[in-house]
Amino acid sequence: MKPSGEDEAAPAGGPWEECFEAAVQLALRAGQIIRKALSEEKRVSTKTSAADLVTETDHLVEGLIISELQKRFPSHRFIAEESAAAGAKCVLTPSPTWIVDPIDGTCNFVHRFPTVAVSIGFAVDQELEFGVIYHCTEERLYTGRRGRGAFCNGQRLQVSGETDISKALVLTEIGPKRDPATLKLFLSNMERLLHAKAHGVRVIGSSTLALCHLASGAADAYYQFGLHCWDLAAATVIIREAGGIVMDTSGGPLDLMSCRVVAAGTREMATLIAQALQTINYGRDDEK
Amino acid sequence: MKPSGEDEAAPAGGPWEECFEAAVQLALRAGQIIRKALSEEKRVSTKTSAADLVTETDHLVEGLIISELQKRFPSHRFIAEESAAAGAKCVLTPSPTWIVDPIDGTCNFVHRFPTVAVSIGFAVDQELEFGVIYHCTEERLYTGRRGRGAFCNGQRLQVSGETDISKALVLTEIGPKRDPATLKLFLSNMERLLHAKAHGVRVIGSSTLALCHLASGAADAYYQFGLHCWDLAAATVIIREAGGIVMDTSGGPLDLMSCRVVAAGTREMATLIAQALQTINYGRDDEK
Repeated sequence: MKPSGEDEAAPAGGPWEECFEAAVQLALRAGQIIRKALSEEKRVSTKTSAADLVTETDHLVEGLIISELQKRFPSHRFIAEESAAAGAKCVLTPSPTWIVDPIDGTCNFVHRFPTVAVSIGFAVDQELEFGVIYHCTEERLYTGRRGRGAFCNGQRLQVSGETDISKALVLTEIGPKRDPATLKLFLSNMERLLHAKAHGVRVIGSSTLALCHLASGAADAYYQFGLHCWDLAAATVIIREAGGIVMDTSGGPLDLMSCRVVAAGTREMATLIAQALQTINYGRDDEK
Repeated sequence: MKPSGEDEAAPAGGPWEECFEAAVQLALRAGQIIRKALSEEKRVSTKTSAADLVTETDHLVEGLIISELQKRFPSHRFIAEESAAAGAKCVLTPSPTWIVDPIDGTCNFVHRFPTVAVSIGFAVDQELEFGVIYHCTEERLYTGRRGRGAFCNGQRLQVSGETDISKALVLTEIGPKRDPATLKLFLSNMERLLHAKAHGVRVIGSSTLALCHLASGAADAYYQFGLHCWDLAAATVIIREAGGIVMDTSGGPLDLMSCRVVAAGTREMATLIAQALQTINYGRDDEK
């Protein structure tokens, strides 16, 4: 099926319609660039560690998305992965703000492991309005708009209703810090969920696509320490519009800048996961 | 692209041509059944643990594959997952033998996590002749025939040439045993590879498809304790024909019945991974 932004039956219009349509078109264009790059050789440089890879394509795709959006919406603000790595501050003001991850799953991308996505979120008055995520290699377009549902290639998404950890498929990611103390905590958290008899734990290398699996009901919970607001913003709208819960690992409300998250199909499941976890401190996106 | 068993340019014929073509056709038919079942509700029973799920579709698909092959090749022998669970012995004799996993990634299947495959291997004189693996949801058909290369939907596969763990993407699976001692060893092995600064470790919930990613060069190494000969047989031919190495976790030659494996694009990488691992004892398929 050809990816399209939304179910045919959904009503058109709304105040941010033009922004949403621009996000869909840019995600599809970015996906084409990424698919082409996957068939070519690449030079790789490192950011904070070997696990946190950055490629020319990241820079190219982020540049394309931001320059196109700036032309069309010159008063809007931007928070984006490569700009932040270059020193730009991550501050979410009440202004319309785009939150962009040009390639989520960069390590996968470098290895040509086919789990790679473009993520574009949009917030106004510090509230997330819509999210667009494009799984480039499988050509799956996930969208969610506040109050209007979540879709994948036109099919409405619905989270799992599971409340029992012992029947759950749980997703997580390792995170960029690999010092022995952080690894111990990461592995100890995985051990706690396996002791609680979770059916399985999966690590696919893309936070954004893991969250899309959750939105589609293919997994029951997700948690991570060490992700960023650009990994979370678009997916949060999609999960909420699919009926799911996105919260802080403390069990309190989500803080987009806190570098940590629990998400699940039900509040019961999210709370159980949050209670099982030990905290790994990654600081805050807005204090870096 | 429509899945097809092999590159157009490859020479036809060979002594097991008819068997290979039958395997391709049955894998595609099984894939259709599995895709249809993924859109329906399912009753689930348990095998040895909640993590080792078995569904009606497993039984249905295995029944189809084996009954069709028995009709066409009445003298051949069979080793297959659900038959083994029902008490059939797993013995590889010199007779032509089919080694079948009807649904690899059953836990994924139950959760509708889209990483699910049919795996059909074929051995003669205790040597693997060909392997056919069909990734049902993504419609990717992987094939390998001894001496004739490995392909995915007609494109030739080539493993990664990486020899350095600190540049490697490594795949593994948790395995069915979830007692505290086994989990400690599983997590300790993952910790050793992350300490060795592997770029990443991925757990996708299907040994067979993880091995196909390795064959395609999208990952550099794979290891697992607790998999079975039907998870390994088809993938082993595909990896070898893509230029890769499949060996025992001791560093010695592969023993298909030993419930453990290391595979990599290069012998250097496979040896380094084997040296890093602690053994988890799962017994042998031919002593159960």
